Amino acid sequence: MGHPITVQLIENPNGINDCPGFKASAVACDIREKGDLKRLDLAIVTTDAPCSAAGVFTMNDVCAAPVHLCREILAKPDAKVGGFVVNSGNANAATAEKGMADAKEMSTLAQLETGIGSPFLVCSTGRIGRKLPMGRIKSGIAAAAQRLSHGTQASLDTADAILTSDTRRKVATAQFEYKGKTLTVAGCAKGAGMIEPNMATMLAFLATDLDVNNLALKNTLTLACNQTFNRISIDGDMSTNDTVLLLASGHSGMAPDEDAGLLQAFRDAVFLVCDTLAEKIVGDGEKVTKLVEIIVKGCQSEEDAEKVARCVGNSLLVKTSWYGSDPNWGRLADAAGYARVGLKEECFDIHYDEVPALIGGIPQDAYLSQWKRIVAKKRFRITLNLNQGKGEFRLLTSDLSEAYVDFNKSE
Amino acid sequence: MGHPITVQLIENPNGINDCPGFKASAVACDIREKGDLKRLDLAIVTTDAPCSAAGVFTMNDVCAAPVHLCREILAKPDAKVGGFVVNSGNANAATAEKGMADAKEMSTLAQLETGIGSPFLVCSTGRIGRKLPMGRIKSGIAAAAQRLSHGTQASLDTADAILTSDTRRKVATAQFEYKGKTLTVAGCAKGAGMIEPNMATMLAFLATDLDVNNLALKNTLTLACNQTFNRISIDGDMSTNDTVLLLASGHSGMAPDEDAGLLQAFRDAVFLVCDTLAEKIVGDGEKVTKLVEIIVKGCQSEEDAEKVARCVGNSLLVKTSWYGSDPNWGRLADAAGYARVGLKEECFDIHYDEVPALIGGIPQDAYLSQWKRIVAKKRFRITLNLNQGKGEFRLLTSDLSEAYVDFNKSE
Repeated sequence: MGHPITVQLIENPNGINDCPGFKASAVACDIREKGDLKRLDLAIVTTDAPCSAAGVFTMNDVCAAPVHLCREILAKPDAKVGGFVVNSGNANAATAEKGMADAKEMSTLAQLETGIGSPFLVCSTGRIGRKLPMGRIKSGIAAAAQRLSHGTQASLDTADAILTSDTRRKVATAQFEYKGKTLTVAGCAKGAGMIEPNMATMLAFLATDLDVNNLALKNTLTLACNQTFNRISIDGDMSTNDTVLLLASGHSGMAPDEDAGLLQAFRDAVFLVCDTLAEKIVGDGEKVTKLVEIIVKGCQSEEDAEKVARCVGNSLLVKTSWYGSDPNWGRLADAAGYARVGLKEECFDIHYDEVPALIGGIPQDAYLSQWKRIVAKKRFRITLNLNQGKGEFRLLTSDLSEAYVDFNKSE
Repeated sequence: MGHPITVQLIENPNGINDCPGFKASAVACDIREKGDLKRLDLAIVTTDAPCSAAGVFTMNDVCAAPVHLCREILAKPDAKVGGFVVNSGNANAATAEKGMADAKEMSTLAQLETGIGSPFLVCSTGRIGRKLPMGRIKSGIAAAAQRLSHGTQASLDTADAILTSDTRRKVATAQFEYKGKTLTVAGCAKGAGMIEPNMATMLAFLATDLDVNNLALKNTLTLACNQTFNRISIDGDMSTNDTVLLLASGHSGMAPDEDAGLLQAFRDAVFLVCDTLAEKIVGDGEKVTKLVEIIVKGCQSEEDAEKVARCVGNSLLVKTSWYGSDPNWGRLADAAGYARVGLKEECFDIHYDEVPALIGGIPQDAYLSQWKRIVAKKRFRITLNLNQGKGEFRLLTSDLSEAYVDFNKSE
């Protein structure tokens, strides 16, 4: 193997259509039934020809109908898809048999209206437990299929159409050069509330122009999700609809099958896009004012480190103290303690950024003013070292504001 | 065994001194160091003679020094104690060796100042990670030891001295008649934030005039705690200081050792006092506006039912929707699903009080107006039936308000 290939994010990414071989379009069909005829809420993405695909889905026992359908479609090892159709404003979750029939109808309609001879994947996001307004959805799919475009605006509109309580569009594109060609992984995502293990209430769509089979796509995507989307947390809730899809158009004609260097570059690109989108999701969490990176070290296993990180990252008392810029390391120690991984107080270190708060269980009160300055920042890092092993875990999380409560108290 | 003995709560309970053989006193010594010389923050409770005792403590890996000390004192099967000393305003947690020395000094001082020849148990509650102001504590213990009294006011003052962010005093007393005598279990507690499995940030003190050995006390108390204090939740955090103590003065001369009927009545009385105090704790959770009883049924085991109940009861999205009086059963289904106990949507029922929201996975939208009326109440019940087994669990929990966030954002 030669020199590793350099993979870089591009500036000013435009979403899916940054990747050759994809077309997109988005329409407003008032799925929220609030009379808003301007808000984009349905999108279709297709390839020029049926393409390989992989998906990673919520681990929730209660899965939305579209998640069931996607799993069904992708169950065949050699499945090809025509693309995907996605709506926001209604999750089509907890909608029983009618929900399943509606998801299938969305898939069939997208296939018919685009004239592509392979099934479409389906995603929905929004309120749980309401039937989809299928009349609006049908005319939306028909309208979207008429406008499919390789252009930038269609791609940005698609990234907008999937948003729910997000305040910002989330797109990222990674590229690398190989044998004289520029190869691409492009993506868009939606996040906001309910972000916790296993990608809660988030959708992400990635596209590549490499020629990759379903199995290699699945392996690459699973690995990337475990390292990125599964390591972010806003409120500890896990949704019924989490889905990450990766489609490969093969448009470049380049296949990484037996080329370890190219495969690694592809993996790096998928990781980079997922990581960038994951960070944008936390940064745009519902009413989040601060981004906090929790690094847990020195555990007896990675699983233990993950437990500690999630206890700390999901503690209401910890999150509210960040919101108040209070360097309350006692709450960190308390939350780490109830992870119950055998933490020994006399070995336990806590740092805010590089500044010690607790060393070997002893408070470092001399640094109080520095702790305060760090916790007042928009982004900071907390390192918890149990000094009992080599297990590590990193979690990206956020504070909890009064506005979050206000925002979520009714829908 | 004859007719079961009737155990009843008394009206207008006054705390520990409702139980013969105990003395109490409380003083204000400004442990918060805010110059407040009126707030009661230290109390001593003693018996006329050294007595048997049992404790149930936090499961947190990070334990406060007084928890370590209590465990040490009660490790001997035949340990007798002189009583206990308790302070609020400072948890003496994450205070390393100095904290342990301070806790021991509190114990020794209480023993010396009261002149009782047995060690004192020690409890502290308040902010984590700060050294106790031992000067104030010492003079507080000396002053309190001078004023020990069997009277009502001293008992109520003691119940007040243990409060932190609580807004109300929490006392309960149960009594029953046996062989012409009135026997008593009396208690007081503090709760507020950080209430979750295993009794987080709560202290409870129970006293009885029965003659019960340490082992029987421990068994009775453990059983009662598992059914009461361990089934309440406010914010999902578990504290470093949770302690429930039960002291038996033997003042009545009645021993349940070989009297099954008397033992059962004693257990019922301990349960009743714990259950009453637990409910008062949830009802007085930090900025709580609603009390919600979650009943999970039809799981394959009690453990599974507990997982579902805790996922639902601790979900921020669920708790904020209660606060907003939004009957968002979709969030209930989502949270139940991420407990990952193998919930089958097509078997799943949800009720608000007696009104169906979901039956066999199918929404019962016709009842929307009734759901709304129920969720707007100060107290309601949610029943989740998975219809897959006989495992059940009941959890008492609360909503989450903006005021909670505001209250906890700094200390």
